[in-house]
Amino acid sequence: MSMGETMQGITLEELQLAARNHGMPLEALRYDITPVGMHYLLIHFDVPFVDPDTWTLSIGGRVRTPLTLSLDDVRARERVRLPVTLECAGNGRARLSPRPISQPWLNEAVGTAEWTGTPLAPVLEEAGLEQDALEVVFTGRDRGIQGDIEQNYERSLRLEDARRPEVLLAYEINGQPLPPQHGFPLRLVVPGWYGMTHVKWLDRITAIARPFEGFQQADAYRVRQTREEPGEPVTRIRPRSLLIPPGIPEFLSRRRIVSPGPCVIEGRAWSGWGLVERVEVSVDGGRTWADATLDPPVSPYAWRGWRFEWDASVAGEYELCSRATDAAGSVQPLDQRWNAEGVTNNMAQRVDVTVAPSRPS
Amino acid sequence: MSMGETMQGITLEELQLAARNHGMPLEALRYDITPVGMHYLLIHFDVPFVDPDTWTLSIGGRVRTPLTLSLDDVRARERVRLPVTLECAGNGRARLSPRPISQPWLNEAVGTAEWTGTPLAPVLEEAGLEQDALEVVFTGRDRGIQGDIEQNYERSLRLEDARRPEVLLAYEINGQPLPPQHGFPLRLVVPGWYGMTHVKWLDRITAIARPFEGFQQADAYRVRQTREEPGEPVTRIRPRSLLIPPGIPEFLSRRRIVSPGPCVIEGRAWSGWGLVERVEVSVDGGRTWADATLDPPVSPYAWRGWRFEWDASVAGEYELCSRATDAAGSVQPLDQRWNAEGVTNNMAQRVDVTVAPSRPS
Repeated sequence: MSMGETMQGITLEELQLAARNHGMPLEALRYDITPVGMHYLLIHFDVPFVDPDTWTLSIGGRVRTPLTLSLDDVRARERVRLPVTLECAGNGRARLSPRPISQPWLNEAVGTAEWTGTPLAPVLEEAGLEQDALEVVFTGRDRGIQGDIEQNYERSLRLEDARRPEVLLAYEINGQPLPPQHGFPLRLVVPGWYGMTHVKWLDRITAIARPFEGFQQADAYRVRQTREEPGEPVTRIRPRSLLIPPGIPEFLSRRRIVSPGPCVIEGRAWSGWGLVERVEVSVDGGRTWADATLDPPVSPYAWRGWRFEWDASVAGEYELCSRATDAAGSVQPLDQRWNAEGVTNNMAQRVDVTVAPSRPS
Repeated sequence: MSMGETMQGITLEELQLAARNHGMPLEALRYDITPVGMHYLLIHFDVPFVDPDTWTLSIGGRVRTPLTLSLDDVRARERVRLPVTLECAGNGRARLSPRPISQPWLNEAVGTAEWTGTPLAPVLEEAGLEQDALEVVFTGRDRGIQGDIEQNYERSLRLEDARRPEVLLAYEINGQPLPPQHGFPLRLVVPGWYGMTHVKWLDRITAIARPFEGFQQADAYRVRQTREEPGEPVTRIRPRSLLIPPGIPEFLSRRRIVSPGPCVIEGRAWSGWGLVERVEVSVDGGRTWADATLDPPVSPYAWRGWRFEWDASVAGEYELCSRATDAAGSVQPLDQRWNAEGVTNNMAQRVDVTVAPSRPS
C-alpha cells in the first residue's frame, strides 16, 4: 500500500495472529541464508511440545512394510543439506482489497534457510508403496480447530510430487537442530512449494488410495473467488521479488529517507516454477522500468540476489517497485489478483522513499 | 480483551510494526529459557549490518582513559552467564482503550534468555569516570527518525544503575553468538528493566556530566497522561504473570477448547522490583481467586514458574486470569492503568476457555 492509501482497520482476531506469527524484516534480504529468528513463521495452532527421546515417525497406510523411525534412525540415513526459500501462501494478503480475514501479511512472509535432512523418496521406497497408493498424507502433531473441525494439521502430496529427489524430512535448520517453532524434531520440506506444504512436527506419513480430503487440503488453500467453489489447489510459489527498503526508516510510518546521491537498491527474487531470469526495477511507481543485475543462482530452490544502481540525486518523492520474471515466463503483476483466501498473490512490492534535500556541508 | 469485546481497528502503520516485530507465542511459557526465534523482538528502526572484524566499542566522554575494545577484547574479559527476563515497556498496549498508537502488543512481548557477556562496571572502572560524570549513554548502530528527529537509538543510565554488578555487555544468547536481530555483536543487558534499556548493536558508551536529553530518554518512554507532560521515566518492570492458554486453539479466534476433567494451568511470573512471592488464579474472570504453587526461583532476574490444578469438569464458558504479587508488595491490577504511550501497563491477562461437553466413550 502506498502513502496515502488506507485500509479497513485490522481486527483483534487478525492482530492476535500477527502478534504470534511473524514476517522477515525486509532488511534481512541482505543475507543469502536467513538467520533463525528472522525467517517468517506461520503456525496454525500451537507449537506442540515434543519429547525427542520418545518421538517416532510412523510410515503406514497403503505400504507393504510399515516403518517406525526414531530420530536417530532418521539422522542415520542419507544426509542432504539444501538452501530453500519458503513463502507463506498468504503473503501479501493484507494488501488485498477487500481484505480476506486471516493472518494479515504485508510482504514479508518469506525466508531462506539451509535445511538438512534425509530424502523422503528412499523412505517411501523402503516402506514399499502398494499399487493403489495415490497420495501420501503428512500429519503434524499440532492440533486445533479450523472450519469447525478439530484436526491435526495435515496435508498430502501426490506420489509424483512426494517422490521428487529434493523433498526432505528435515531435522536441522542452518546447521542447528530445528527449534520448536520450525517443527522440532522433524518437518517436511518440499522445495518450490508454498509454506503450507512443509508440515512441521511430523508424526506420521500415510499412503492412501484416494485423494486426501482433510481440511487443509480440500477446504483451505484453494484459489477461488468464493468460499463455496472448489477452486484450484495452491501448489508452487509464484514469482516474487522484494527489495531492501533503502536509507533509514521513520519509526511509525516506516517511510524511508535516502540521502541524495547514488543509491544501490538490492533485493532477492524467487519462483517455484523455475529460475528467476529477469528482475526489473521502477522508481516511479511502475510507469518506467529498468533491468536489475542478477547474481548467479545459489540453488534451484533458493532466492536469487539482484542489484540496481539508482541515481537518487534529485530530492523528492519516489515509489520503488521491482518485479520478477521466471523461466516459465510468468511476470509479477502490478495489480492484485484477488481471491477469497488471499493466497498466491504476488503483486509487486511498493516502497515509498523520500530523497532528502542535500545538506550544506 | 475478552470474548465479545471489540477494539478500534488497527491501522496500516501499526500492522507494519506488528508484522516486523513479534511476540512470544504464549505456549513458549513452558520453557525456562525461551528458544531463539520465540523470544519477543522490538526493533525501532532497521536491524543494522555490523562487520564483527572491524566493529569496535568505544568508551569515552567524561572518562580519564578512553577505551576502544574489539569483540575479542570484550570476549577476553570476565565472562558471566545470566538468565534474564526481558519485557517490552509497551506490552499490553493494544488492550488499552483508547489505544496509544505504536507497536500494538497484546500480552506476549516477553522472553527469558541466558545472556553471556562481561560485566559493565569493571569496564567503566578501567576507563576511570571523572568526578563530574552523572550518567552513561549507550549508543546503538540502529538509525532512523522518530519524533521528527534523526537519531541513532540511544538510552542512558545513572551511574548507580550502570555500575550494578548484574549489568552486562552481552555477546551471546542461549550459548550462541547474538543473532543480528538481538544486537550482534554486542548489546547492553540491564536485568530487571524494561526492554528499551537493553541497547542493541552497541557502538559507543559515553559518560556525561548532565542528564541525557536524547529522544528515547527525554521524549519517549515516559509515564504520563498527555504527551506534553514530562511525566516519569520508565525504568524497572512491573509485576506480571502470564499463563499458557490450555487445551487447543481455534485458528482464527485463538479461543481455547478444553476437554472436561482435571486441567493443570501453568505459567510464569516476573517483576523487576523484587521476587514474585505470590501468584493467584481465577477461572471466573477475577471474581474469585486461589493461590497457585510457585516453583523455586531460578535467578533473581528471570521469571518464576507456577502451576494451578483446575477442576475443569463442568462444561461451559470460563475466563482465566492470573495475577502476580512481588516482594515490593505490588499486585497486578485487573483494570488498565492508561497512559499516553501505553507503557508499563501490567493489567492481568484474560483467557477465554470453553470446557467442552463430555464425549460419549
